[in-house]
Amino acid sequence: MRTGVWLVGARGSVAATSIVGWLALRAGLAEPTGCVTELPGLRSPALPALGELVLGGHEIADTPLLKKAEALAAAGVVPARLVDALHDEIVTVDDDVRPLPTGDTQAATAALIAADLADFRTRLALDEVVVVNVSTTEPAPDPLPAHADLAALEEALAGPDRVLPPSSLAAYAAFTAGCSYVDFTPSTGARLPALHELAVRHGVPYAGHDGKTGETLVKSVLAPMFALRHLRVRTWSGINLLGGGDGANLAEPAANAAKTASKQRVLGETLGYQPQGTTRIEYVDDIGDFKTAWDLITFSGFLGTAMRMEFSWHGCDSALAAPLVLDLARLTAAAHAAGRHGPLPELAFFFKDPIDATAHSLDEQWRILADFVGSLPGGEH
Amino acid sequence: MRTGVWLVGARGSVAATSIVGWLALRAGLAEPTGCVTELPGLRSPALPALGELVLGGHEIADTPLLKKAEALAAAGVVPARLVDALHDEIVTVDDDVRPLPTGDTQAATAALIAADLADFRTRLALDEVVVVNVSTTEPAPDPLPAHADLAALEEALAGPDRVLPPSSLAAYAAFTAGCSYVDFTPSTGARLPALHELAVRHGVPYAGHDGKTGETLVKSVLAPMFALRHLRVRTWSGINLLGGGDGANLAEPAANAAKTASKQRVLGETLGYQPQGTTRIEYVDDIGDFKTAWDLITFSGFLGTAMRMEFSWHGCDSALAAPLVLDLARLTAAAHAAGRHGPLPELAFFFKDPIDATAHSLDEQWRILADFVGSLPGGEH
Amino acid sequence: MRTGVWLVGARGSVAATSIVGWLALRAGLAEPTGCVTELPGLRSPALPALGELVLGGHEIADTPLLKKAEALAAAGVVPARLVDALHDEIVTVDDDVRPLPTGDTQAATAALIAADLADFRTRLALDEVVVVNVSTTEPAPDPLPAHADLAALEEALAGPDRVLPPSSLAAYAAFTAGCSYVDFTPSTGARLPALHELAVRHGVPYAGHDGKTGETLVKSVLAPMFALRHLRVRTWSGINLLGGGDGANLAEPAANAAKTASKQRVLGETLGYQPQGTTRIEYVDDIGDFKTAWDLITFSGFLGTAMRMEFSWHGCDSALAAPLVLDLARLTAAAHAAGRHGPLPELAFFFKDPIDATAHSLDEQWRILADFVGSLPGGEH
Amino acid sequence: MRTGVWLVGARGSVAATSIVGWLALRAGLAEPTGCVTELPGLRSPALPALGELVLGGHEIADTPLLKKAEALAAAGVVPARLVDALHDEIVTVDDDVRPLPTGDTQAATAALIAADLADFRTRLALDEVVVVNVSTTEPAPDPLPAHADLAALEEALAGPDRVLPPSSLAAYAAFTAGCSYVDFTPSTGARLPALHELAVRHGVPYAGHDGKTGETLVKSVLAPMFALRHLRVRTWSGINLLGGGDGANLAEPAANAAKTASKQRVLGETLGYQPQGTTRIEYVDDIGDFKTAWDLITFSGFLGTAMRMEFSWHGCDSALAAPLVLDLARLTAAAHAAGRHGPLPELAFFFKDPIDATAHSLDEQWRILADFVGSLPGGEH
Repeated sequence: MRTGVWLVGARGSVAATSIVGWLALRAGLAEPTGCVTELPGLRSPALPALGELVLGGHEIADTPLLKKAEALAAAGVVPARLVDALHDEIVTVDDDVRPLPTGDTQAATAALIAADLADFRTRLALDEVVVVNVSTTEPAPDPLPAHADLAALEEALAGPDRVLPPSSLAAYAAFTAGCSYVDFTPSTGARLPALHELAVRHGVPYAGHDGKTGETLVKSVLAPMFALRHLRVRTWSGINLLGGGDGANLAEPAANAAKTASKQRVLGETLGYQPQGTTRIEYVDDIGDFKTAWDLITFSGFLGTAMRMEFSWHGCDSALAAPLVLDLARLTAAAHAAGRHGPLPELAFFFKDPIDATAHSLDEQWRILADFVGSLPGGEH
Repeated sequence: MRTGVWLVGARGSVAATSIVGWLALRAGLAEPTGCVTELPGLRSPALPALGELVLGGHEIADTPLLKKAEALAAAGVVPARLVDALHDEIVTVDDDVRPLPTGDTQAATAALIAADLADFRTRLALDEVVVVNVSTTEPAPDPLPAHADLAALEEALAGPDRVLPPSSLAAYAAFTAGCSYVDFTPSTGARLPALHELAVRHGVPYAGHDGKTGETLVKSVLAPMFALRHLRVRTWSGINLLGGGDGANLAEPAANAAKTASKQRVLGETLGYQPQGTTRIEYVDDIGDFKTAWDLITFSGFLGTAMRMEFSWHGCDSALAAPLVLDLARLTAAAHAAGRHGPLPELAFFFKDPIDATAHSLDEQWRILADFVGSLPGGEH
Repeated sequence: MRTGVWLVGARGSVAATSIVGWLALRAGLAEPTGCVTELPGLRSPALPALGELVLGGHEIADTPLLKKAEALAAAGVVPARLVDALHDEIVTVDDDVRPLPTGDTQAATAALIAADLADFRTRLALDEVVVVNVSTTEPAPDPLPAHADLAALEEALAGPDRVLPPSSLAAYAAFTAGCSYVDFTPSTGARLPALHELAVRHGVPYAGHDGKTGETLVKSVLAPMFALRHLRVRTWSGINLLGGGDGANLAEPAANAAKTASKQRVLGETLGYQPQGTTRIEYVDDIGDFKTAWDLITFSGFLGTAMRMEFSWHGCDSALAAPLVLDLARLTAAAHAAGRHGPLPELAFFFKDPIDATAHSLDEQWRILADFVGSLPGGEH
Repeated sequence: MRTGVWLVGARGSVAATSIVGWLALRAGLAEPTGCVTELPGLRSPALPALGELVLGGHEIADTPLLKKAEALAAAGVVPARLVDALHDEIVTVDDDVRPLPTGDTQAATAALIAADLADFRTRLALDEVVVVNVSTTEPAPDPLPAHADLAALEEALAGPDRVLPPSSLAAYAAFTAGCSYVDFTPSTGARLPALHELAVRHGVPYAGHDGKTGETLVKSVLAPMFALRHLRVRTWSGINLLGGGDGANLAEPAANAAKTASKQRVLGETLGYQPQGTTRIEYVDDIGDFKTAWDLITFSGFLGTAMRMEFSWHGCDSALAAPLVLDLARLTAAAHAAGRHGPLPELAFFFKDPIDATAHSLDEQWRILADFVGSLPGGEH
């Protein structure tokens, strides 16, 4: 099953790391560390093989992909030896990275995006195309009546106003082109009733939101631990210090608010109550791609005894995200091939703010994911 | 089902906290925070109610239980108001704390211990008695041929030599008296083939070893997190700083070795390989009952990117252990009532070094435990 | 030298801890831990003895001082045994805590405050009175022309508008009453040209701002360490999690801004450049009086090698501040007695944002302080 | 003043980093970050310029210096671009790295070492040669009577037994060749009465022991902070996790004991009492050159309030040590030129366990060092 992976933000850090890593895996130059679909419990013939993937995407920046890969190597995100060894292949992928088109109306823009997707599918003889949003986090848009209803949305898009934020316009275009859609960011993406309607109409699945790569991943195992031991979490506060392009953007109050809400959700969902405290995101340019998150948890035990835990997480977000992008593309393509449409809550394992999900403990999410893979046609082989 | 809980080390910190807490719960003066058998997922009519428990035990120290409770209140382990309010009840429980008897041979000592257990059961009209070892950690004993075979053991015990360490002699006595046995410490306890044979002969169950109260609890959720995300843990090193009586004892090299081996086991079992590093235990008298554990985990992700995590855990071991002692007594009594004998691997959730257990991730252990409770006669009501 | 210490905010946490501690020291019930004027290097006959101090103050809250002391004991800030033992003395001090008066104009209010100060001095036969502001942090006021010139200020105060924030009005009243003034908070206090003019006219000294009790104290030794080793600090970011009354107030954006600017100043001053990063203050009610501060410092060494340091500080602000309040009162009274007027930059050791100070490394500040004490008349005895 | 720097262990991590860094500084390819003699407060014409240094040394390993430099670049200790750019210069320095000679007796070995030093001086027309020990830490040797007296030592060295550990034999050879000696390790080095006698006889200075590069550096500013604030440090415990060659060696109990004693000394010296707790050193191979140290400090403040601080230090020991090696060579050569002989306690700033030093707070050590530099002939220009 030849599967196209169309990255929105295709020369950003996450996308470039995904591309270099995918090329390295394909060439046998790296181990699939971080790729959960390569674990014994998830590996399945129902998923497209890594070698069956073809990567491309949209990008607004002009910097060539190779320059970006070299910058990532200099920053320690990917090994310089891989960028050297895969020089030609990186340039070849860059041929399939297109400038994000713009029309006179949002409807026209969507049509141009969809045309690029159709061209990608046809030209490269792909069975499936999955669009994955790994572009910069947007501020939450103001709600509009057109978001709630597909007919109203189509009418509004034909007018002069900006109706959808870019992530949602990408989802719109993907669905009309018959492509599935994954939102790896906390942006709005497909999370509007009108877009759900459109996905169902076109019979395509979608998944999201906000890849769970670091501090929230830890929360998704520590919060259940406190719950299973009947310990009362009193406060859970944290700070994320991060640089890089995404950091600068997340420091914008509106984007920050979207992100921090997403990061605390797991606590209420797994504990059954919301402890005091919040998670701050701070942009510190010099910290670059390696994020440091620190959390303080205060809790009480038997007879009210006050106790506490602290943790620091020093992770490279792009390196944590990139293998999950490949996983999500494979899983979403397989779901589409199996006839699924609408949201894929079974992929909650990957997200901070999973769509329609009931389970928020990592372990429960894993079991649901493993059951899902096992249930795919051909998955039981 | 009136259930006796016989604490070996009945005036130690863990036992005294269990007793004060049990009295407080019975009197409605405290919430059952930390008691996992009071969580919705485990609460069951198959377990003896907290009000059906009766506590007693053996102790070598002379300090009255009330003095110990007051010392714990001064150290912030239990609230002073509870010790004040439960003054009379604490004194009453102390009436059922007996000096540990000594005979001319270990066989004679065991008979005296068993007689105390039988008297406790008869005098207080108990349906069951569970013996729980919460005494100080012993050094690992030298292996003897008599440990491997019950007949040989019985012969040896009748002789002049010390054949069994105290924790194992307590298990021996418990089994001969028809009592179940729980080892909350890393001592040998029932972990000898001859004692297994004895438990089976008397039809009693046993459980252990080494209550999972702090750093190892955290490991049992973090290690699976790395495994489920296919991240490679390279090193996992830590140090435990603790004071109090148990701390001083654990600083002895032999006891320390028993404990640290127990603390790393979860890593190999859940990761499938043993990362570099060890866990140190350091005695620092002034730190008292509140232990600080610090762990450094280094791991690599996609394309080998080096990342790291640190955590500090500042917990009160006695407050973390005490509610689990009550849980274990209730669960073991119910297992006995249901006809179980031999080891209870379903109680692995509670232990660092669980007997015969296959699951080491906390979440899997929880599911096995919940299934076990659900399967008890009357448990499904 | 009988010395009055007039606390603005006399039933707040800092003031109440100062009062209980002073009573305990006077009664020989506690060691002078935390009192730097009791260190061998600073102890001096030039300073009023602890037994020569008399404490009183203004307060807007009605809660009796004893209630506040009991609440602090319950929170673990002061020992309950001291509050019990000093019950009568605490009630007696409360007799000298007066409601903050209010006149028709700010001039009238200042006159009422000054009258309370004069009455305190006369009634208790005090040689000196030092006013110490330990009330809640104010937002920074809008600048007014009247702040720059004493004649203009006096005219404006007689009018109907609010010209000075409360901390500055207290300084104004103190100076007109011939009292020295210390600002332990980041509020404006005496930091206005018109008030400087007034202090000089009345021949009284003043000191401030913002007691250096925790995270900034640590910064004032770590930043010089990096500087002396020629290591380049790239980023220094932190977060303070605190509850209690002051925490709630500091979470207000305006007060927060005043405080965080004060907290980063030491970095630029000791390093010679401003590293990236900021210090956040977060209010988490449940954390109460014990503050946790976490800082991440990234730095580069020889040939640009990237390194990092983290620290967590878990301190009780009131317990850290209270002995310094006593120190500052003794030192300022002695300076006044020695004929000093205007700012006392020699007390920079105590402050995050010291007035007119040139030294910001703790060690240099200590030497300047020790020289100052040695230079006081009678100090060399 | 042409100054030879003879490194004992010249292809070890510290030496190789010193060499690459010195070459880079000389070529204008790097900033002198980490070099304290390049700070405004210490820069002095009394010191040999970096361009006047000439590096060489002894080594037992065969790996070429270039290979070692490449390995350090791969480990992130030095930038790969510098190793590339300085390829030829590194090979040239390696010409002056000689195998450590061995004679029939230790006297004969010392004569061979001294001959290498004399040859280095003559051949390269050096005014001074400073021998710096940066080889692996030795176990503390058993004391011998010959250590106490120079005549006895000379007699013993002529015999068949091993009388001196290698670091001391190097000091012996250095002194007889008229070279000054610096011990950057915790080994015995010049710390024997007989060697002191020899240094005085030959009129050469020496300095040591044990470069203060990380955790102890932090201790040397934090301990004075607690002292200056009259806060009582109750416990100070820590652990160092390190890999690399030195780590493996320090894990040997004897070497470990030497090192940990050295690391706690600063506490007793600056606090005036020894708090509870120790510092552990653990070897974790995979951690490599980047060491992580974690310390927990518990302390009490006013009225006994219990508080705590933790810090983690993640530093590259070789990168921290290398610039100090250059500093020490320049300072010791200047002291020799100025006619100093015997120990140089003024260099305590650089050492964990400084010889004959009275000051242990970093700040006092800095002032003593700055005064020393200022007092050198030509230093005041």
